[in-house]
Amino acid sequence: MYNFSAGPAILPQEVFAEASEAVKDFNGIGLSILEISHRSKEFQAVMDEAVALAKELLNVPEGYEVLFLQGGASSQFMMTTMNLLGEGETVAYVDTGTWSAKAIKEAELYGNVNVIASSKEEGYDSIPKGYSVPADAKYVHLTSNNTIFGTQFQSFPDVDVPIVADMSSDIFSRSIDVSKFGIIYAGAQKNMGPSGVTMAIVKKDFVAEPVRKVPTMLNYNTHIGKGSMFNTPPVFPIYVSMLTMRWIKKHGGVDKVDALNTAKADLIYSTLDNSELFYGRAKKEDRSKMNAVFLIKDESLAPAFLEACAAAGCNGVKGHRSVGGFRASIYNAMSIGGVQKLVEVITEFEKANA
Amino acid sequence: MYNFSAGPAILPQEVFAEASEAVKDFNGIGLSILEISHRSKEFQAVMDEAVALAKELLNVPEGYEVLFLQGGASSQFMMTTMNLLGEGETVAYVDTGTWSAKAIKEAELYGNVNVIASSKEEGYDSIPKGYSVPADAKYVHLTSNNTIFGTQFQSFPDVDVPIVADMSSDIFSRSIDVSKFGIIYAGAQKNMGPSGVTMAIVKKDFVAEPVRKVPTMLNYNTHIGKGSMFNTPPVFPIYVSMLTMRWIKKHGGVDKVDALNTAKADLIYSTLDNSELFYGRAKKEDRSKMNAVFLIKDESLAPAFLEACAAAGCNGVKGHRSVGGFRASIYNAMSIGGVQKLVEVITEFEKANA
Repeated sequence: MYNFSAGPAILPQEVFAEASEAVKDFNGIGLSILEISHRSKEFQAVMDEAVALAKELLNVPEGYEVLFLQGGASSQFMMTTMNLLGEGETVAYVDTGTWSAKAIKEAELYGNVNVIASSKEEGYDSIPKGYSVPADAKYVHLTSNNTIFGTQFQSFPDVDVPIVADMSSDIFSRSIDVSKFGIIYAGAQKNMGPSGVTMAIVKKDFVAEPVRKVPTMLNYNTHIGKGSMFNTPPVFPIYVSMLTMRWIKKHGGVDKVDALNTAKADLIYSTLDNSELFYGRAKKEDRSKMNAVFLIKDESLAPAFLEACAAAGCNGVKGHRSVGGFRASIYNAMSIGGVQKLVEVITEFEKANA
Repeated sequence: MYNFSAGPAILPQEVFAEASEAVKDFNGIGLSILEISHRSKEFQAVMDEAVALAKELLNVPEGYEVLFLQGGASSQFMMTTMNLLGEGETVAYVDTGTWSAKAIKEAELYGNVNVIASSKEEGYDSIPKGYSVPADAKYVHLTSNNTIFGTQFQSFPDVDVPIVADMSSDIFSRSIDVSKFGIIYAGAQKNMGPSGVTMAIVKKDFVAEPVRKVPTMLNYNTHIGKGSMFNTPPVFPIYVSMLTMRWIKKHGGVDKVDALNTAKADLIYSTLDNSELFYGRAKKEDRSKMNAVFLIKDESLAPAFLEACAAAGCNGVKGHRSVGGFRASIYNAMSIGGVQKLVEVITEFEKANA
């Protein structure tokens, strides 16, 4: 079975195997990972390794902290602005799709939102370029990869203010220059782990002084000060994320994973570009290496194509309801073999329906 | 191995076995529970069953909704008050320990907090009684069970306003009259499931109109409207909680579990009451059936007693740092056999050190 779901999404099989064992007996201690205290030395070791691996894999510089929080990117939409955006202050947003728009909505509760660029008019088929960040913007927010529309920032803009980025769907898929960012946040449930944990990489200086009184749980400094253990953390999601990071490291780190992701994306997009029946939705230069969104010229054939996918063990290829068509999410853990299988289905379907 | 940890805590062995299998292959569908979409029919069925079981086990009346959220009770401390307590409005708190005090701190951010009763002066050895709720209080907040001090409300006060209760450590341990409550919230990681999910039982009328503009994720109505699926929920913690609720139902429901909990508590407390060396910390009438907190007259013997516990496979008996001594957490999933083993260790240790 090949899992092309957009999220929660495929993780490495060896991670499932080890996690399954830990639910019965964690590291041979005679207790389940689900029942041990988060204050135990066994879990502290998991947390320490998760933080260390994230810092190593993403080359996180001094002055930043890696946090494991709850509530998903949806909670970071408001937590970032609640801490950073004072009344009367301005923040710049780049609008590249549904998730950007949701982030913008939460920011509007706290200050002035300046949407400096948007691809909304073009149906979010691309990443805006050629914009500049106004001098009064405290920071600029962007969504690095857009799962629904299949677009991705190929590189990040050079701007004079810190970037705050939602990297939920492409974290750990490539190297990034963390020093450009004030906060990077990511729900785990694509490349990192199961749902239920959110990673935040925060520049400590940038979040040191919340602009207003914020509740303890929504203050980044609470979690920095307590090593993500102010309250009971989501033990199992953090553990599985740690296992996934170990797997990335074992496979050579994010650059190696990126090379494989590029090969996978090239395979599927070149198939689409050579097709008479299917076509990629996003502009070529902005195509996502995580989510290949594609459409079919003869829409009456869509159900039959999805059946062909299912018959070949390709799961979760149906497109998002707001876009239609198809979506193949090819995150880190998707093998090239899985993509070859899907390409085979596409090619054979096209031949049969020529 | 007997797990007496205060939380994350023991869950039924058959829950671990089934959860472990689901991490490899969920319901025989060929995919892990960790990688399936939260929008899949398979997970929707889990969510629906979890909600239905919670309603059935706790006899939740019409007009209430059961939500599965993130962020723990610590997030509910602020989410309740952010939604309910307008500036200038007053809320009454009963202070029974560390967790009440933390809840009070978050409430102070939003309105006037009237601590109408507290056992702080007595080292939180009891549950306050004989207080009344002032007429201007919008609701009264209490912590039903205090893990650190080993006290528990044996019944809930009859008051003229709704009660908001933190039931993190005794939810599903006994029947409750839900109609007395405006909101009941509980972090899962004691009687309900692994850490990473928080259940909230909310009276829809009570939360219908937030008193201020609140971020989307912190508005109860968001989650009521979307069946706890506004954003990606913590799939695995909800699944394991559902399995645990199934186990409670299979064992006859909360009244049956309560009877067993009473027997377990009676066994350990009667042992302490007959001891020359050990003694229970809390006042007898307020003793918790979830966490038996006890001390030793000769403190120099404490390390040897903990060694004896460990040698007998009794794990996690060390008391909380703020109280010292010992704590046996005997949640639903702790067998009477486990308590008998601990009682044996206590009795033999006392004999050996007479």
